[in-house]
Amino acid sequence: MQTVATTDSADTVDLGPASGLSCRECGERFALGPIFACEACFGPLEVAYDLPSGDAEELRKRIESGPENIWRYAPLLPVPADVASKPNLNPGFTKLVQADNLARELGVTGGLWVKDDSGNPTHSFKDRVVAQAIEAARAFGFTTLSCSSTGNLAGAVGAAAARAGFRSCVFIPHDLEQGKVVMAAVYGGELVGIEGNYDDVNRFCSELIGDPAGEGWGFVNVNLRPYYAEGSKTLAYEICEQLGWRLPDQIVIPIASGSQLTKIDKGLQELIKLGLVEDRPYKIFGAQAEGCSPVSVAFKAGHDVVRPQKPDTIAKSLAIGNPADGPYVLDICRRTGGAVEDVTDEEIVEAIKLLARTEGIFTETAGGTTLGVAKKLIEAGVIDPALTTVVVNTGDGLKTLDAVAPTTGMSAVIRPNLDSFREAGLV
Amino acid sequence: MQTVATTDSADTVDLGPASGLSCRECGERFALGPIFACEACFGPLEVAYDLPSGDAEELRKRIESGPENIWRYAPLLPVPADVASKPNLNPGFTKLVQADNLARELGVTGGLWVKDDSGNPTHSFKDRVVAQAIEAARAFGFTTLSCSSTGNLAGAVGAAAARAGFRSCVFIPHDLEQGKVVMAAVYGGELVGIEGNYDDVNRFCSELIGDPAGEGWGFVNVNLRPYYAEGSKTLAYEICEQLGWRLPDQIVIPIASGSQLTKIDKGLQELIKLGLVEDRPYKIFGAQAEGCSPVSVAFKAGHDVVRPQKPDTIAKSLAIGNPADGPYVLDICRRTGGAVEDVTDEEIVEAIKLLARTEGIFTETAGGTTLGVAKKLIEAGVIDPALTTVVVNTGDGLKTLDAVAPTTGMSAVIRPNLDSFREAGLV
Repeated sequence: MQTVATTDSADTVDLGPASGLSCRECGERFALGPIFACEACFGPLEVAYDLPSGDAEELRKRIESGPENIWRYAPLLPVPADVASKPNLNPGFTKLVQADNLARELGVTGGLWVKDDSGNPTHSFKDRVVAQAIEAARAFGFTTLSCSSTGNLAGAVGAAAARAGFRSCVFIPHDLEQGKVVMAAVYGGELVGIEGNYDDVNRFCSELIGDPAGEGWGFVNVNLRPYYAEGSKTLAYEICEQLGWRLPDQIVIPIASGSQLTKIDKGLQELIKLGLVEDRPYKIFGAQAEGCSPVSVAFKAGHDVVRPQKPDTIAKSLAIGNPADGPYVLDICRRTGGAVEDVTDEEIVEAIKLLARTEGIFTETAGGTTLGVAKKLIEAGVIDPALTTVVVNTGDGLKTLDAVAPTTGMSAVIRPNLDSFREAGLV
Repeated sequence: MQTVATTDSADTVDLGPASGLSCRECGERFALGPIFACEACFGPLEVAYDLPSGDAEELRKRIESGPENIWRYAPLLPVPADVASKPNLNPGFTKLVQADNLARELGVTGGLWVKDDSGNPTHSFKDRVVAQAIEAARAFGFTTLSCSSTGNLAGAVGAAAARAGFRSCVFIPHDLEQGKVVMAAVYGGELVGIEGNYDDVNRFCSELIGDPAGEGWGFVNVNLRPYYAEGSKTLAYEICEQLGWRLPDQIVIPIASGSQLTKIDKGLQELIKLGLVEDRPYKIFGAQAEGCSPVSVAFKAGHDVVRPQKPDTIAKSLAIGNPADGPYVLDICRRTGGAVEDVTDEEIVEAIKLLARTEGIFTETAGGTTLGVAKKLIEAGVIDPALTTVVVNTGDGLKTLDAVAPTTGMSAVIRPNLDSFREAGLV
């Protein structure tokens, strides 16, 4: 059944190649609009496209001559063709770092790369997804941007809204650490603390969407979620382009809601369909913290269903106990021959230090989780060290200093003279 | 008198177009080596070049087809031609953000840009200078990288050394804030606290250079300083290339030691000489914090000599009370028709928030100082709002959260219901 429901704005919406929304469960189609759940079966909606047909070589050249940010892929994203001329933070095209020192340490011989998204404007991959949501918000005539957040997303929304000329009003649990509050509040939008936990914040936002007080508001991770989520596809595009338009053999991705992993897979599939990369097998691996490992537990048990957990881990940006895209993640990792694994908080901290010490990249706990899982799977022989491997680093260590602070400090304290230095035994 | 002194390593040193060192005071020439002061007059040494001769158009194309980092300018830097193939952090080619919102707020009509160096690998311009020092260290056979630092430089050296395969041993005052210690120590090199202030740290490093314990050590900001400092030229190159190979009319630059400002001027002069940009007047403006304003005070008093101050400002990365390049800064700002100005700590914080609120860029206190001075000079009619202006943002707000924390927080704390939200009066 492929009936099309229309929204008021459907006639005037220009989101480039986006042709509508489709339900991932029942396939029902809907016109482009600020909706996120299927009216028929309540399944999640995702963006459907009329992707460019025609010569792959021409498309590749068009991309390569585009701007050095995600908008080079505008023909594959739910954004108008002139998106690059509008004010936004222009995230993306972050470095794909060839990690030879790390490869040596892990015994990887087939090539190891770190996709380093700490280079984005607010230093996490969130800038990619928020940038898509902004364009959807423009298309639907929203004037206020909002989200529920545990910190990082609040900053990404605040920054992007400021630059793009939107009002922003963002909701966080009231008891966040001061550092995260400052990072989120400095952009000058409204930052509202909710007396409750992240679930309470989420519930409140859902209520606000249906209320006159929330009219004209685009919640990037609620009613704009289908568009927002597409931003993660750009990680797949960039990795392949930066490898010389080639699929990696193996790619390790963190799992919070699971959206990023599913969209990276979607992006890889699109590149194959468009003829931009050669169609050959790749394996996707998902990374969780042991203290929030519902998908990993389900994968290992052979389940299709993800049983929710109460998170308890230092990897707070991955601490979603009931990940919406969990079942899709299981499906992708199984289909591609990959796996889902988890690591302890101690292994996360070790991995953060390993990456810093070998490649000079300081990642946050999510990146430590991803690298920790990569290391564990290499040691277990699940990731093949003779094949090309890409590890996705989604954020910046400056945002989670507390994770490494207890075990990171000075080698010695000395008096300002050579004798004291020699006594310290460092040379 | 242009005699040439040689060092042992002179015959084998390949630092590309760098032909030697010359004294900025007496013009005496020296062979390339790890020296920083003139043997004749104790003046500071700087790198002299045999810059590419020939067709400007050809050079421009060669640059444009180079990598998306500072190594596209390798023909103009003291680095070997194959520098891009060596492991390093590849900083540079950061965004030049067209700041239309900020321009509107400041009444600038001629075009306003922010050169945003928070996009560098360790989120400050220091990555540019350290990258040069690393290549000099390789050329001179050093195996350990070192520096004296108040925090930021220590991290930049630690990260770059890790990636490039050097040992690092870095010196800081022992009482730095824990956050800065973590940022510097996480890369795994030796981090040594010195019981004393930054001057004590500096004195100790000078002692160490002359001692067997410091043999094989390259101190990026001491015995490698002439090479290190050249990294700031890349800011000039990038600004002009990103403006479409055009000089800005006005450029505002922070002053710590003054090295960055003098090297940006040097870079602009080189582009003119090479025919890469049209030769027309530009004005350079220097920015200091009122609590450390020795150059600004000298400028306003019409002095050629800079009287040292004891710093007391939140702009700690600019807090050099006796700036080595102060007299050169005065000369450049006067020669180009620019100025040096300072702002209070309150104005610095206001400027940080202004940039965040208008362009979504969160800068550290140095960037707040620079924008604060730009605003002050625009309001005073010293900077012409009808001409193109570039403001240099050298660092990232995540590193100086304390500066804005006391005045940046939540708009409201509410209970998780609509009534409570309405009572807060935000809509």
